Amino acid sequence: MNNESMDRFLARWHAMIDAGDSRALPDLLAEEVEFRSPFAFTPYRGRVAVAGLLQTVIQVFRDFHYHRQFVAGDSAALEFSAAVGDFSLKGIDLIRLDETGRIIDFEVMIRPANALLALGEEMGRRLAA
Amino acid sequence: MNNESMDRFLARWHAMIDAGDSRALPDLLAEEVEFRSPFAFTPYRGRVAVAGLLQTVIQVFRDFHYHRQFVAGDSAALEFSAAVGDFSLKGIDLIRLDETGRIIDFEVMIRPANALLALGEEMGRRLAA
Repeated sequence: MNNESMDRFLARWHAMIDAGDSRALPDLLAEEVEFRSPFAFTPYRGRVAVAGLLQTVIQVFRDFHYHRQFVAGDSAALEFSAAVGDFSLKGIDLIRLDETGRIIDFEVMIRPANALLALGEEMGRRLAA
Repeated sequence: MNNESMDRFLARWHAMIDAGDSRALPDLLAEEVEFRSPFAFTPYRGRVAVAGLLQTVIQVFRDFHYHRQFVAGDSAALEFSAAVGDFSLKGIDLIRLDETGRIIDFEVMIRPANALLALGEEMGRRLAA
């Protein structure tokens, strides 16, 4: 893991988000990735489960935009804004890469509480469908 | 605002947190600081109101620890963990400094949802008291 790996990861990540095409997502995740959602303390584990969750979130968010971007070693913090239903929200993607430059740990925090709960309801509807 | 201002700010901030003494807090806030809480989209404004809120939060958190720290220009993202009641939580302090090296924008995001709601209840009790 070096700065070049992080730069390459971020370029691929933003290209995927900008294109609105999450087919590239699984190859950006480590096999043993852990996803720490805004809803549950216990992480979700594994590429297939996490890719499915993230692809659902990407579909639920409207007007998704990244803002400030922070990098420190093998980790990055990406500030974003989006809308869910009638609510505006802010969030952080907190990402750690493994030595192959894939996400091994992905943590998402969202505010405020009413938008977080609206996102949870919409996620529940989609995942139950 | 330069790297030296950010370094100096972070040194003072961590010294205050480590000492568990928030009397230094007001001088670290700009007069016109905005605080974006995990609970409401609309920010709180002004040094006195924001210092009061942050001092209450500091009292409510148990086992508070900072982890990864990210800096980009005039902004910093500080990852933390803490406990509230029976709940463990993770969070991010997203801080922007003004040209005097004081916080002009302070945004806090917390996960997971059950710990966020427990924090909200405890904050409500303290602020009503």
